[in-house]
Amino acid sequence: MEEIKIIELKESVFADNDAEAEKLRQSLKKRGTFLINMMSSPGAGKTSTLKALIPKLAQNHSVSVMEADIDGAIDADEIQEETGAHAVQLHTGGMCHLDAGMTEQGIDSLGDTPSDIVFLENVGNLVCPAEFDTGAAINAVILSVPEGDDKPLKYPLMFEKADVVILNKCDVLPYFDFDLDTFKKYLRDRNDSCDLIQISAKTGDGTDELAAWIERAYETWRA
Amino acid sequence: MEEIKIIELKESVFADNDAEAEKLRQSLKKRGTFLINMMSSPGAGKTSTLKALIPKLAQNHSVSVMEADIDGAIDADEIQEETGAHAVQLHTGGMCHLDAGMTEQGIDSLGDTPSDIVFLENVGNLVCPAEFDTGAAINAVILSVPEGDDKPLKYPLMFEKADVVILNKCDVLPYFDFDLDTFKKYLRDRNDSCDLIQISAKTGDGTDELAAWIERAYETWRA
Repeated sequence: MEEIKIIELKESVFADNDAEAEKLRQSLKKRGTFLINMMSSPGAGKTSTLKALIPKLAQNHSVSVMEADIDGAIDADEIQEETGAHAVQLHTGGMCHLDAGMTEQGIDSLGDTPSDIVFLENVGNLVCPAEFDTGAAINAVILSVPEGDDKPLKYPLMFEKADVVILNKCDVLPYFDFDLDTFKKYLRDRNDSCDLIQISAKTGDGTDELAAWIERAYETWRA
Repeated sequence: MEEIKIIELKESVFADNDAEAEKLRQSLKKRGTFLINMMSSPGAGKTSTLKALIPKLAQNHSVSVMEADIDGAIDADEIQEETGAHAVQLHTGGMCHLDAGMTEQGIDSLGDTPSDIVFLENVGNLVCPAEFDTGAAINAVILSVPEGDDKPLKYPLMFEKADVVILNKCDVLPYFDFDLDTFKKYLRDRNDSCDLIQISAKTGDGTDELAAWIERAYETWRA
């Protein structure tokens, strides 16, 4: 198994992150790389969702993963070992989010043969990553059942920025006081256009639907 | 029931947060207020831990709570309604953490009769709050079982800054792949002096021990 490359990201030098993000988005479009920015709290299940998704997407597409963390490399290790997808580990040097410049460094580290689909697993943080456009085509936000149904109320921007909200760990709904209707109400107060997909990365429930959603988004983006 | 006061915090003007935090810590010491800064990811159970703790602590002490959120007031509402403790809601104006200046605005909003023990429920975020000294006497970090055993590896500073780490939601250990030994190893790699207390805020398990820990810390601080 190929050893995981660890990239120590440098702080971005760009004053205008939005402009830099737009430039990156256009360059990714030109080279045919569909970048998905996955955001969530720590431990909501970004990595396990990717492990469930990648084998489905890899049937028709090449897939790579950029794992951003403050420290450690176990996510990239796991992804590469368990799915075979090419994965790099990005270290943020303590930073709480990725911006477009940092994302670009990650993309560059993937090498010259870009994949059809690249996942950026952002730093686990339900606040700051929402403030920085990474240049991705799609923002996917994962919330997990144990975190509670009130999160769209308390963390508005993250849910406002979502193209799709993935409600993960639905297998443990019986063990938590999570009211789906309350959650949906708070979510729709923040964002009435995003899609909502319920999954359990652990049992696999809903991951076919999620993979189909991503395939459709990819096809729409390519068209 | 007294209506919840919502304080819209102003951005701090202090260049040197550490100095401001030290000043606040000394002023709180002088007036006999033991400030506990509670930090965690979103949904790890800060509010439910407080709801379990306050009735125990309130037998011997006056207790107040400052609930910091980007938006909403349901935490402060819940605390005040269910425990009777005086609670204020702090709105951070989108900010991902509290610094000493913002904490001081919260303290001021509690009024002239300070409680023995004041809890600051920081913004749910396992990254940024660790970077800002709030002036608290104690940093308590809550991690919940569903977040996973690898969090001290990935979020180093938060665990380095902890005086006590509270492992919450231990009632659902059977339903999650959370290895206690792995967690303890990662935690000790970051911090070999903090205490570790396992609880379930939901069932109440371990909350007597946690209340006793806080009482001891309070007595040590007063001495």
